[in-house]
Amino acid sequence: MAESGGGGPALRRRTLFVGAAGLAGLGVGVKAVTAHASDEAPTHGRDVVEFYGDHQAGVTTPPPAHVNYVGLDLVSSGGERDMQAALAGVLQVWTEDAARLTAGDPALADSEPDLARLPARLTVTVGLGPGAFTGTGLENRRPRWLHPLPRYVIDRLDQRRWGQTDVLLQICADDPITIAHATRVLTANVAGRVRLRWVQRGFRNARGTQDESVTMRNLMGQVDGTVNLGPADHDSLVWDDGAEQPWFAGGTSMVLRRIAMNLDTWQELDPRDQELSVGRRIADGAPLSGGTEHDDPDFEAVVDGLPAIPASSHIARARRRSEVERFLRRGYNYDDPPEPDAAGNVPTSNSGLLFAAFQRDVDAQYAPVQARLAEHDALNRWTTPIGSAVYAILPGARRGEVLGAGLVR
Amino acid sequence: MAESGGGGPALRRRTLFVGAAGLAGLGVGVKAVTAHASDEAPTHGRDVVEFYGDHQAGVTTPPPAHVNYVGLDLVSSGGERDMQAALAGVLQVWTEDAARLTAGDPALADSEPDLARLPARLTVTVGLGPGAFTGTGLENRRPRWLHPLPRYVIDRLDQRRWGQTDVLLQICADDPITIAHATRVLTANVAGRVRLRWVQRGFRNARGTQDESVTMRNLMGQVDGTVNLGPADHDSLVWDDGAEQPWFAGGTSMVLRRIAMNLDTWQELDPRDQELSVGRRIADGAPLSGGTEHDDPDFEAVVDGLPAIPASSHIARARRRSEVERFLRRGYNYDDPPEPDAAGNVPTSNSGLLFAAFQRDVDAQYAPVQARLAEHDALNRWTTPIGSAVYAILPGARRGEVLGAGLVR
Ligand code: HEM
Ligand code: HEM
Repeated sequence: MAESGGGGPALRRRTLFVGAAGLAGLGVGVKAVTAHASDEAPTHGRDVVEFYGDHQAGVTTPPPAHVNYVGLDLVSSGGERDMQAALAGVLQVWTEDAARLTAGDPALADSEPDLARLPARLTVTVGLGPGAFTGTGLENRRPRWLHPLPRYVIDRLDQRRWGQTDVLLQICADDPITIAHATRVLTANVAGRVRLRWVQRGFRNARGTQDESVTMRNLMGQVDGTVNLGPADHDSLVWDDGAEQPWFAGGTSMVLRRIAMNLDTWQELDPRDQELSVGRRIADGAPLSGGTEHDDPDFEAVVDGLPAIPASSHIARARRRSEVERFLRRGYNYDDPPEPDAAGNVPTSNSGLLFAAFQRDVDAQYAPVQARLAEHDALNRWTTPIGSAVYAILPGARRGEVLGAGLVR
Repeated sequence: MAESGGGGPALRRRTLFVGAAGLAGLGVGVKAVTAHASDEAPTHGRDVVEFYGDHQAGVTTPPPAHVNYVGLDLVSSGGERDMQAALAGVLQVWTEDAARLTAGDPALADSEPDLARLPARLTVTVGLGPGAFTGTGLENRRPRWLHPLPRYVIDRLDQRRWGQTDVLLQICADDPITIAHATRVLTANVAGRVRLRWVQRGFRNARGTQDESVTMRNLMGQVDGTVNLGPADHDSLVWDDGAEQPWFAGGTSMVLRRIAMNLDTWQELDPRDQELSVGRRIADGAPLSGGTEHDDPDFEAVVDGLPAIPASSHIARARRRSEVERFLRRGYNYDDPPEPDAAGNVPTSNSGLLFAAFQRDVDAQYAPVQARLAEHDALNRWTTPIGSAVYAILPGARRGEVLGAGLVR
């Protein structure tokens, strides 16, 4: 778990005890621990998630309302030593800027310092793709699982627009202006050393629209996020212990899949068929075998001679076959402005899921589940993966340290 | 002003007294009037802005955090009578669906009814472009000012992507999931009669990140929205009185300009020059002639022999030359994912302002100011209008009425 933070320097700033608050994002009804001075309006723009720690924030900390996933490539300008130096420089700048921005302070070269004053639970999480190791002479330091996922028959990947990049920034906050500013600063301050490939914008419910213990819905209307890891699983299933790559202790991996939803055909389906394709009730997310949202699904239950939860349903197929097939899902919805095609026709929507999964080992924990879903999953009729990438999420930095210090210098 | 609403049917729903709350959006420190039952968490997802009234909501009501402006064209499928019938059908569906969705109830044909339960101050505002009058045999009912703006030398309009459409939906709410769902439902339920042209997504600060009396900042970092109309001006300067087109009493006009910001060159400017180009301090929005944000700028003030507020600055140029040159600004920031160009290069950002102005008469109130800014405005070096459209915002509907009932049948 991430640490509970101490008081920050800025007036009226409140630091979340993210250890406790982390539970909220996992459907456990724990409220973020915040202190309101009595003369203070109950605003949350100055809520701070601690940047420093054994682990980076933005993984097991509660997901704020908005995300920008930012994919960038290293600009290759010389040999491996130069590339490694460029990577080291980027990590240095990002560590300094992220530490300041997440605390509500302007970045070092911040042209709009006043846009930094509402961190709104800003987290900046840095990941490395395979290219950050191969081009930099660091191949022998690369985690074994850091390679492209296998090609799946369901994939219709647009690699140019949403594919693998050398580095990743995951920028989360409750305020969209905070996100825009942090994205701008963090990318502008390293221009020349990296080149922007894509920005993927996502959202969940706005902070405060409902109780934080309520699981969000995706744009198909399903309760999404019910079965997930809890804090007790993080050390065993999320955080690397350094056994293979000592420098990586405290890191984790992230799979980011951009999955388009065909809402036109989904909405033609009657509600009962929608439920059978997922295996859960739409209204409240309870398994079709009965009970309420957080009750265990009973995959053996039979109704009128048929399985209550079809074997082809998403949850039956996604269900772990062993305890190792588990990971932390932390996705966001996307709904970008539809783009006109060559003929000038504009599709009715451009919506889906930015599916993000965190785990120690992609090959052991994630890949078998993804392979099973690719082979068969009732939901596949309405969903299409159009982007895919895998990143090594760096271990956290302690105060005074630089992200990735164990890897590059 | 819009009406204060009565209690809605749904449990735990709270209706805002938008008459009072309206002030909050204008920088006057009045808090929205809401009632919290003591056993109720202070969440705002069920806050409702009344749909019915003399005026449509979404103009003088406080701006929620998110907007989708949705531009659509009528599908021409026959003669003028058919087109008018199609328009009437669309307005009927939108009235029914908007009344339900804004109250937190699913639309009539709502494939994701559970996404409707958090209205989060949802407003749906319907406007008509010139094409809704010319193609439908309603030319003689068209407000005199409903025509394209003159071409300005500063314009680099992409008419295909962000240009004038026959109809407009302005969809505002504090929750991005609410926006996505309402956009989806309202466009899907009229498919066949209208064709989607564009969606323009915008945002302000998230609800609750700071006190509602604080003026938002745009992505150049400026305090934006200080000098604006107040409630006392709405009847004289915003709402039409029906003198020219009796059916239009209670309506207004909207100018929507998509204005790109060049943040790369803006950030090269030193802070003092940034301030001189606007005429206000960046830190707190106070006029360069002194005082605090809401003090009147003194355009005669001289410092060291030079005008404190340069005559070329944005506020000096935008300042009304007569009392009629005033309108209600209600803009949103945009920050869309940058799109790769033909060579595959991705620009550092795709940001700007969705500038929306409401006034009784575009020609008399808005056009002279826009012409003056186009002729000269220090800010023009960093801003480029790339979209432009004008709409007649229909009068409000009273309960049981359909929007535009005075125009079509
Ligand atoms: C657009 C694509 C997807 C949609 C709409 C979707 C939706 C859902 C929904 C509604 C649930 C049930 C509620 C819950 O436990 O959260 C669920 C569960 C789950 N999903 Fe997905 N999902 C998608 C893609 C994926 C992918 C790509 C994976 C992994 C490769 C995945 C893995 C899981 C797992 C492990 C569960 C929990 C299953 C269990 O009950 O043990 N999902 N998903
Ligand atoms: C990206 C483009 C623009 C930016 C960044 C911008 C920014 C600003 C800022 C920072 C202010 C001062 C604070 C305030 O009173 O709100 C302001 C004032 C104003 N702006 Fe703009 N603006 C833009 C475009 C426009 C346009 C297109 C118009 C109208 C045609 C306009 C009309 C005004 C008016 C009337 C004022 C108040 C002037 C006064 O003090 O009387 N602005 N704008």
